[in-house]
Parts: sequence; C-alpha cells; structure tokens
Amino acid sequence: MAPEQEVQVLVKQLEEALANDSSQVEELSSLVSSLHPADQAELYCRLSPAQREAFLALLNAEGLARLLEHLPEEEVEELVARMPRETLARVLDHMESDEAAYIIRYLPPADAARVLANMRTAADVAPILQHAEDTAGGLMTRGYVALHPDMTVQEAIAYLRLHQPFAQEGYYLYVLDGANRLQGVVNLRQLIIANPGTTISQLMTRDVISVPPETDQEEVARLMQRYRLRALPVVDEKGVLLGIVTADDVLDVVTEEATEDLYRLAGVGVEERALSPLRESLKRRIPHLVVNLLTAFLSGLTVSAFEGTVAQAAALAVFMPIIAGHGGNTGTQAATVVVRSLALGDIRPADTARIVAKEVSFGLVHGALAGTLAAALALALYQNPWLAAVVFGAMVGNVLVAGVVGALIPLVLQAFKIDPALASSIWLTTFTDVMGFLMLLGAGTLLVDHLT
Amino acid sequence: MAPEQEVQVLVKQLEEALANDSSQVEELSSLVSSLHPADQAELYCRLSPAQREAFLALLNAEGLARLLEHLPEEEVEELVARMPRETLARVLDHMESDEAAYIIRYLPPADAARVLANMRTAADVAPILQHAEDTAGGLMTRGYVALHPDMTVQEAIAYLRLHQPFAQEGYYLYVLDGANRLQGVVNLRQLIIANPGTTISQLMTRDVISVPPETDQEEVARLMQRYRLRALPVVDEKGVLLGIVTADDVLDVVTEEATEDLYRLAGVGVEERALSPLRESLKRRIPHLVVNLLTAFLSGLTVSAFEGTVAQAAALAVFMPIIAGHGGNTGTQAATVVVRSLALGDIRPADTARIVAKEVSFGLVHGALAGTLAAALALALYQNPWLAAVVFGAMVGNVLVAGVVGALIPLVLQAFKIDPALASSIWLTTFTDVMGFLMLLGAGTLLVDHLT
Repeated sequence: MAPEQEVQVLVKQLEEALANDSSQVEELSSLVSSLHPADQAELYCRLSPAQREAFLALLNAEGLARLLEHLPEEEVEELVARMPRETLARVLDHMESDEAAYIIRYLPPADAARVLANMRTAADVAPILQHAEDTAGGLMTRGYVALHPDMTVQEAIAYLRLHQPFAQEGYYLYVLDGANRLQGVVNLRQLIIANPGTTISQLMTRDVISVPPETDQEEVARLMQRYRLRALPVVDEKGVLLGIVTADDVLDVVTEEATEDLYRLAGVGVEERALSPLRESLKRRIPHLVVNLLTAFLSGLTVSAFEGTVAQAAALAVFMPIIAGHGGNTGTQAATVVVRSLALGDIRPADTARIVAKEVSFGLVHGALAGTLAAALALALYQNPWLAAVVFGAMVGNVLVAGVVGALIPLVLQAFKIDPALASSIWLTTFTDVMGFLMLLGAGTLLVDHLT
Repeated sequence: MAPEQEVQVLVKQLEEALANDSSQVEELSSLVSSLHPADQAELYCRLSPAQREAFLALLNAEGLARLLEHLPEEEVEELVARMPRETLARVLDHMESDEAAYIIRYLPPADAARVLANMRTAADVAPILQHAEDTAGGLMTRGYVALHPDMTVQEAIAYLRLHQPFAQEGYYLYVLDGANRLQGVVNLRQLIIANPGTTISQLMTRDVISVPPETDQEEVARLMQRYRLRALPVVDEKGVLLGIVTADDVLDVVTEEATEDLYRLAGVGVEERALSPLRESLKRRIPHLVVNLLTAFLSGLTVSAFEGTVAQAAALAVFMPIIAGHGGNTGTQAATVVVRSLALGDIRPADTARIVAKEVSFGLVHGALAGTLAAALALALYQNPWLAAVVFGAMVGNVLVAGVVGALIPLVLQAFKIDPALASSIWLTTFTDVMGFLMLLGAGTLLVDHLT
C-alpha cells in the first residue's frame, strides 16, 4: 500500500463532499472512518470553519480523542477552547492518561478542575498533572499492566484474557508487590513461551532501569536512547511505580529538542514555522530582531570610535567584513559543535578545560592560515606590508577569541543550568564583530602613518 | 535504581582492576557482566590500548556483539578493522541482521565477502546490504516473526513456544501467505486475549502501512512518527515482506538528521564532535573555513570598489556592519525556519509562492522598523538627514532581499533534491554582506556630496 497517495484522494473526496450540502451523512462517516486519525488531522487543518463543524459532527467521543492526538498544537488549543466541557471530559476518557494530561494543561485552572471532576479516568490523569510538563512525571502514562510476583504464568495469561487491560505499552508487564513497589518486568514474549506453572517472580528481570518523576525530559530521552528502552518506569523515592514513559514520547521529545536547539542558535522563536501567519511571525521574530539590531549598533559604535582612522586609511574598511565575518563563522561553528555534543550527552561541563585547550590549538593553526591568506590579499591589493601585518594580527586574534568564546558560552550556560543553545550565533556575531573591529582598527590607529 | 551513579562506581572499580595486573580474571568478568553493554561501551572508550585488549579478552562472541552495538562509530570502525575475520563472523552471528549489516559496511568489499561466507546468518544480512544505508531497505531487520493466516491462535502460540523465534520486534507478528506476501499483522496482546480457536486471518489487521525498500530514511522516520508506528514493514513490488524497520532505528535517524541539519546550517562537517582530536577537527573544519574566507573576500572586494566613497564619508563604515549584520541575521532566521519546516514535513516546495509572499510582507514591515531605528542612530550621531535616508534605504532593501533569499535557497535546493540544510548561514552571510554594502555604499556614492 502506498498510503499517502490514497490518502490524498480520500481527502479530496471528503473535501468535496463536505462542500456539497446534499451529500449523505452516512457516506461521509464511512469515508472519514476509512482514514487514519493522522490523515483526518491533516484534512481537518485544511477545512474552513464551517466544514470543520460538519466534520467534527461526524466523530463520536473516541473519534474526537484520536483526532486530538494527531492535531498540531495550535489546532488542539483552538478546538479544546471551544469544546463544551462535558464533551471534552468524555473525549479525554478515551485517551491515554499522558495525552489527556497534555490537553488539560491547555485549560484555565477552573476549567481543568471541572473537566477532571467529570472524567471517569481522573484518577490516572491527576497524578501526571502534578509534575512539570517537561519531566518524566509529566510525560508518563498510567497505561501499563501490573502483575503480582506470586502469580503463575498461567494465572497471568488468564488475568490478561479476562480483564483485557487497556495498555499503551502492551509488550512489557510490570511486577509490583503489595505496596505497588516495582519488583521487576516481564514481557509478553517471555509469558507466551514460558512453562505455564512458572511464577512471575522466577521469570521477571529484576534489574530495571527507572527514574524519579522530576527527571528532565532530555535526560529521559538520553537514557532511553542509550539503553535502547521501549519504556522507562517512573518510580517515587520508595520505589512505587508511578507510570511509564513510552518510546513514542521520546521520539517527540528528541524532535522537539532538536528544533529548539536549531532555532535558539539561529535566534528564532521555538514556535515559528514557515507557514505561520504573518502576524504571528511578526510577533515572534521582531522582538528578537530588534534586540539583535540594538546589539549590532555596538559594532557600529565601535567603528565610529575609529572614524578618523578609517577616513585616513579606507583600506581598513575593506578588511572589516573579512575579519569580523570570519571570526563570526569560526565562533558559530565552535558553539554549534559544543551545543550539539552537550545535547547528545557526549560532553559535560567538566570537560571544559579540555575543550578550551583544543579550541586554542585549533585557533592558532587556523588563525595562522586565515591570517596568511588575508594578509596576502592585503599585499595584492595595496602592496603595503604594514597593512598586511595589521590584517594578519587582527585575524589571528579574532579567530582565536571567537573559537574559545564560542565553545565556552554554551559550556558556561550549561554549568548554570541554562539551555546552552541560547549561545545564539547572533550574540556571538556581535561579539566577534566588536572584537574584530577593535583589533583591526586599534592596530590600524597605532600604525596609521604607515597605512596611507 | 539510579543507574548512572552506580555505573560510575563500577566503571571506576573496573578501571582500577584493569590497571592492576594481579587481579583475578573471574572477578573482572563478573564486574564486566554486571554492566549494561551501553556502560561497557562508555568504559571501553576511556581505556588505554593495552587495557582495551584485556577488556576485550573478557568478552565472548555474544558479549562482543553487544559491545559493538553500543560503541560510537569511530570506535566500531577501529575495532572491526583489527578483529580477525573469523572472530568477526562469529560476533556478527550474535547480532540483529540490521546491526550486522551496518558493521559489514565498514569492511573493504573482499573482507566483507569473506566474513559473510563465514556467517551462519548470512542469508538474513546479505539482502540488507543490497540497499543503500540510508533507505528503508538498508535500515530494516530480518528479525521478525511470521505466521500463516490459516493457523489458529492456539497453533500460533504453540509455534512460538516450540521455536522461540529470535525477534527484534517481539510485539508484532507478521502474517504471510505461501509466497511470503504480507497479508496482515497481529500483536502478542491480541494473541493472548483471543479465543484459542480463532484463526490468525480472522484476528489480523489487514490495512498495514508499508514502504518499498528504496524509501529514504527521513521519509521512513516521518511516516513512523506520523502514524505512531513501532515497526514499519518493508515490501517489494509484489508485496513480499523483505524486513521491518523498528522504532529504535527511527530514533537514531531522527537524531542523526537533526545533527546533520544543525551542522550544515552552521557550516560544520557532520562527523565533528566537541572532543574530536585536534587533527580530525583541523581536517574537517579547515576546508570549510577556507572556502568561507574566500567568499568573505567577496565582501571585502565589494567594499574596495567603494574605497573612495568610504575615505570621503567614513560615517558609512559605521553602518556597514549594522546593515550587513542585520541582513545576515534576518536571512539566517528565514533559512532556519524553512529548513526545519521542510525536515518536519510541514511544508513542501509547492508552498514556495506562499512562503515568498509572506517573507516579502514580513521584510517590508520589519525593514521599515529596522530602517527607522538605524536612520535614527545616523541622525543622532551625525545630524545628517541624507545619511539617514541612505541608511534607511539600504536597511529596508537588505532585510527584504535577505529574508526572501534565505527562505528561497532551501526551497530551491529541496526542489532539486539537494539537502536544503546546505543553505548554510555562511553562504547567506556573504551574500547579505555583499548586497548590504552594494546598497549602502552605492547610494552613498551617488549622494556623497551631501554626506560630508
């Protein structure tokens, strides 16, 4: 099956049918239910407000739950805001506890309390809401199956057949003692192939990796990736199982954190998308850009301090963008590598000394090379060895400082528990501009008599 | 359990024991086997060459297989290169077929053939090697369990008990007809809770999302994320099941692609890490940086064409970094948002006209604002309305061009099937420098009599 093409056709049919008042509700319903919820979500986003109403009317509470799980954030927010609170409670009852908690977080506190009071599954959702959204406790689901260690395999299978527990992670079964403390884990495959008389405690793996609920989501993702876990149990300080974080959440976390790092490095707001409406983009990008512009004024003011020198030796202006720009690139590269290595867990702030030592060596080799090339350009254009010497010195100095500072800023931020990606290339660029101009125009001022 | 702290202690004990010749091999072995392979890999990376040999001698073929699965790329390459070919064949027999294929790709073709000839599991690995590494066929594993549609649930369970098939994805079972064509899928939970007499064909889900083997890994990741799949079957044009891509591979793909985008945008080589050895970093970063420097020379040469103007009106040099830098930031932001939106599948090249239209509107509003601020600075510093007008015009023009070009380059690259992240901010910065200088110094030259 080539799903996407077929989906496009179905979406088109449905779009036409919704536009056409005379069409039968049953026909529409069967078209909709033949679509995967992810495709229903795509269709929903393309519809006009009136068509959306018609579309929503085709779905029951469970259908609405599946749709909400696949809608983009801003659409979830909009739809949840205008859904009657009783309907919403019924819809959330059909969701995984982690997804339901995610949606309840969009509501004002009074509404959240009211919706929770109307939910049958409130007892599973409320504990998740106690934890911050970006922690293990906020990501976890209560949808797991628990077994008792004294059960036999046969009893466990009979229990599963009888109760058919609703579980998001259906492969792992968690073994809990009388006080709900996590004792071990068995998987369905072990259960199927084991001798029916074996007890669960004989079968289970005891050495289970788990985390406390306050663990940051990036650390959760790192652990699950490192140990190739499909699910990670969250336990309190007594070892009581609170919930499990599942692999699909980790995929979302990894994607989200990668976008965040990329955007922060480029100085873009995290919510921005290429087709965000103009007003949104203005609201989100302009404050950043204005701050950047004001920092850029610093570069301009640095030059203005040396205006007399530039007027006397305008050749220096030719090398301003070369030295400043190359410092900016060197610093951005160093910062990017450090930010990503921190995110992947390859390095820690404790490695700072080694990284700085490396950037110093790197800067000296690379600075000498870049300085020589820039000095050669100066000689070729102006046949002035003094100018070449000034350009060489400023290039070596700026490249060296840019690399060290570029690598250092994210490490320092991380040490202070601030997101290292805030070492945005934009701040760095202003810094390398100012340093480059100070060195080039400073040395130029001292030697200005030799430059004209 | 707080695994990482305990691991640090164990790693330290083992490091000491390995350094100490008198220690017992059994004691060491039991220490090593108490560590998760991911932690063994971390330890291995910290050891000296002699210690590494002692460490490897403690592991059997299966232990080596687990270690290799968790080592970083460069260590895998080094270890595989010096492992005797017969040992390697035995180690690979203990790996998932996708992991074994990944490792065989590091070998020269003659060695690869020799190792494959010595492997018991060659029949599972060879088909994967026929496909490019970054496609569904190259990522897939042959470690899945197949059932026949006419089996009853009871027979299926008896079959699993008897054969205990080794499967990476143990939750889903694939239903194949006599010609190995994929008919449907059942999961272990369905199997356990179903009536024992039900046939697999009654139980199975028929509407299975699958992909052909040549599907790009980014598309595989996007599909699995969109439809929340734990495993994605790969089928040939006749519908024959070739293998399955599992969720852990997708997590690796998403992480790898995010790093690639981030690095390409910053103009860094994809292999670079903060603690890569200096020689490696020089080899990987310097060619990039030299190319960047040569492009920066273009900015310098643009200024040199207007050297006379700068000598007459040095105030223009003050606004060079402001206008060029702000254009660079605006362009980088637009490019970053478009690259990420393309990677997340939010936009396609078909959306180009809408995106450009938006960037034009954005550029006009933002350019007017930034131009006004910069013109105000010009008035404050020089009280010259002509200079303010030149600065305003150059800022509006450069911001507008930078945003449109920044958004356009990745879209054009994508349309030509080139990685849009190659729209590196470094090229863009040179472009925005040159455009900014042309506009500022060009207008300055025309009006130079009013500027002094």
